[in-house]
Amino acid sequence: MSKRDFLSTADLTRKELDDLLDLAARVKGKRPGQVLAGKVLGLLFFQPSLRTRVSFEVAMVQLGGHCIDLSSDDLYELEPQEQAVMDGRAEEHVKDAARTLSRYVDALGIRSAARTGTWERDRQELLVRNYAKYASVPVINLETSFEHPCQAIADVLTMRENLVTLKGRRLTLLWCNHPEPKSLGPTHSILQAAAMMGMQVTLAHPLGFEVDPQVLERSRALAGEHGGGLRVVNDMETAAHGAEVLYARSWGCTKYWDDAEREAMVKRSLQGWRVDEALMASTNNAFLMHPLPVRRNVAATDAVLDGEHSVIYDQAANRTHVQKALLMQLLK
Amino acid sequence: MSKRDFLSTADLTRKELDDLLDLAARVKGKRPGQVLAGKVLGLLFFQPSLRTRVSFEVAMVQLGGHCIDLSSDDLYELEPQEQAVMDGRAEEHVKDAARTLSRYVDALGIRSAARTGTWERDRQELLVRNYAKYASVPVINLETSFEHPCQAIADVLTMRENLVTLKGRRLTLLWCNHPEPKSLGPTHSILQAAAMMGMQVTLAHPLGFEVDPQVLERSRALAGEHGGGLRVVNDMETAAHGAEVLYARSWGCTKYWDDAEREAMVKRSLQGWRVDEALMASTNNAFLMHPLPVRRNVAATDAVLDGEHSVIYDQAANRTHVQKALLMQLLK
Amino acid sequence: MSKRDFLSTADLTRKELDDLLDLAARVKGKRPGQVLAGKVLGLLFFQPSLRTRVSFEVAMVQLGGHCIDLSSDDLYELEPQEQAVMDGRAEEHVKDAARTLSRYVDALGIRSAARTGTWERDRQELLVRNYAKYASVPVINLETSFEHPCQAIADVLTMRENLVTLKGRRLTLLWCNHPEPKSLGPTHSILQAAAMMGMQVTLAHPLGFEVDPQVLERSRALAGEHGGGLRVVNDMETAAHGAEVLYARSWGCTKYWDDAEREAMVKRSLQGWRVDEALMASTNNAFLMHPLPVRRNVAATDAVLDGEHSVIYDQAANRTHVQKALLMQLLK
Repeated sequence: MSKRDFLSTADLTRKELDDLLDLAARVKGKRPGQVLAGKVLGLLFFQPSLRTRVSFEVAMVQLGGHCIDLSSDDLYELEPQEQAVMDGRAEEHVKDAARTLSRYVDALGIRSAARTGTWERDRQELLVRNYAKYASVPVINLETSFEHPCQAIADVLTMRENLVTLKGRRLTLLWCNHPEPKSLGPTHSILQAAAMMGMQVTLAHPLGFEVDPQVLERSRALAGEHGGGLRVVNDMETAAHGAEVLYARSWGCTKYWDDAEREAMVKRSLQGWRVDEALMASTNNAFLMHPLPVRRNVAATDAVLDGEHSVIYDQAANRTHVQKALLMQLLK
Repeated sequence: MSKRDFLSTADLTRKELDDLLDLAARVKGKRPGQVLAGKVLGLLFFQPSLRTRVSFEVAMVQLGGHCIDLSSDDLYELEPQEQAVMDGRAEEHVKDAARTLSRYVDALGIRSAARTGTWERDRQELLVRNYAKYASVPVINLETSFEHPCQAIADVLTMRENLVTLKGRRLTLLWCNHPEPKSLGPTHSILQAAAMMGMQVTLAHPLGFEVDPQVLERSRALAGEHGGGLRVVNDMETAAHGAEVLYARSWGCTKYWDDAEREAMVKRSLQGWRVDEALMASTNNAFLMHPLPVRRNVAATDAVLDGEHSVIYDQAANRTHVQKALLMQLLK
Repeated sequence: MSKRDFLSTADLTRKELDDLLDLAARVKGKRPGQVLAGKVLGLLFFQPSLRTRVSFEVAMVQLGGHCIDLSSDDLYELEPQEQAVMDGRAEEHVKDAARTLSRYVDALGIRSAARTGTWERDRQELLVRNYAKYASVPVINLETSFEHPCQAIADVLTMRENLVTLKGRRLTLLWCNHPEPKSLGPTHSILQAAAMMGMQVTLAHPLGFEVDPQVLERSRALAGEHGGGLRVVNDMETAAHGAEVLYARSWGCTKYWDDAEREAMVKRSLQGWRVDEALMASTNNAFLMHPLPVRRNVAATDAVLDGEHSVIYDQAANRTHVQKALLMQLLK
């Protein structure tokens, strides 16, 4: 059985990424008709969602299809381990849930971004990868601790709309402060996608907040391959200087992944990692991006979030358009 | 950006109220067709809902549109205060949620009726008013502690169906007992709407259960302007005498709004505030109304709720028809 | 007001059961068109659901209709007792919820399978039966502790597809181990339906796990009437020998219904009640059935669940087809 999943921006070829962006741009603001009439997308959220949930449901509805939302509360615990003797709390194996749902729906979207142990464990995206393995219908990653590809494609579309061409343009991915430990998903996904677009990417974060080495390596290779570059810096001033896009978001510390208190302690001295007007003034007239939800006046100030260079709501709006294109490719 | 919200019966002119009722009556039992095809209504319930949730979703579906229900469990906490430094529990500002959702849906309905502090705070309807302020799409009040306009319009339609003309007709709004502290929303909204229809309104409650003075004043003015009247009494017998409609519902004590135990203590001596056959017999052959859910044999007896003068299910059914008319006005 | 409910396989005549199966077989894999356009099915789940929820929503959507899911969290507690003085926690009477929902939707599906006291209480299916009593629209049982008729009809369809004729064919309903106390619903419903099809049914369970005597009596009578038979055995070997279908599922101990610890203690010595390759080898080349979710390697081994005689996913898939047929009969 041949099927396509959408799990990582790293799985896309440049051609596929371009095609997806082009289709999204053509779909945007148009009424492509009931091209997905009779199709059903199942959504499984194991964490709260506003943008992803609503943008996917609106995308399906406007294409004539239907969404079924199975939030975590509606479902019992699932067992991801092969050959498990299931005498514990898990009421059903992922294998059976995936195979059953494949008989009902035409595609499955899954968010599973909780911290469940060490980084070594969570970087494997066990639940989503197992769903993809056992489902006979396409599986879409709606965010794990490791990737958030739907967000990243919407972000690339937003940059393309504002900068027209992306090759060689200067994007800074800037870590910012947050009271809670966050997923690395959006950061990993945009890093790879921007590299593939040949952007000059600066990844900026405090020491200790390194991204996954494999993702960094892959992104560096992609950037090289497509005429771009990737550098890592550990101070905000260098990071902001010359940036044409400043993309702010917090992410977690993989070293203390299973020790939230330790991470919180480390972050006490990092409250300066916040985007404000002075920092924006030091850029090359940069657009400000953030995938939302944003902690106002912690990650970035009201002045810059509500300022004229902020495109944060365009990013959110582009989720629908990109996902329409994706669903048309996967389901039509 | 011009948009219409639907937050309070006090915002309507008499002409608008009549138009809404006329459209609801014309829509009722008819199939107006797919006039809202492609339109999406987002629903946010921060408290449980049966009638409001189902009647809105049925209304949208039967007009060809779609509802997305975002119940409170699916969402993290939202920050309503301007300029807040968001280092606490709230994951997103109302401003960002409202602006984002405005990019996805065509209208937003919000229920936010929890007690969160004093009456002075909750009477401001902070969350719903902030959503309305920041959203670029119409916002519909699905009940706050202060208003429940969708219920009230359905109630006026129900009275009009049974009494034909409302001007000068005698409506008694009667406080009744309830084990829990309740919102003042339905009472405030029907009080204003009935006054605008020129009814002779009797508001009846025990001492200590006064409604909001501003609402009372506004209702008195509206009644005067439209040929009706408004009096307040504190005993059930005077309240029931001569009534053509007896509208029962409990509401909370604004003085002890943040002290549920104190309110419960006050209510211990008020168990006589219950509608029974003897009370109904003392009216002018009145119809019995209640917005539901009702505490049977506490607020009103089985005999009167299931009696031939009860129109409680017609009120509920009219929710769909009134909301269809409202959605057609806001979205068509 | 005349209406049809679907509460128990025992309510069907053989003619009705055959008609339902025939319609399901005709509908399967076909697009019967928008025959339920404008129809709304309300779903109330008081326990988690995967198959039932998704298969019903897909069925409605593919027939042009719509589902509204009201999961337990969205709703306050309901009072099932007649004439109750509602000064406790229940916010609304089942009577009022049922009558109100009947004004909004075209049919209601309800799952209420929690243990709430003794078997004598739970076998009465109070909530579902009261909904059916007060609703003026058809009520569908989505599983109680006593019955799960939608599952059973899908199971009969699955057996008919694999065995072609069912009369005289040997079906073994086999109790198997499970860490949690389970409902008797699926077992009771398939027992009655298989008996009505004239199958030779073997009911196999450890001592202490007897099914409800009234269901057993009724099933024995049905089997006799339709040329089949029913025997009860208490060992796995006798149960498996000669079986053409081996249907595994755990169910609860009615004697200790309100004492989960006692039931767990009894089950400690019953871990051998598990389907494995050796047991399957002793059958007459039997198909393996299980209604899912299944505890792998507790109720049955991976080898047999994933083996070539397993039809567990076909059972799940047939839920949609059977429910389409049912909804067409109830709503068209």
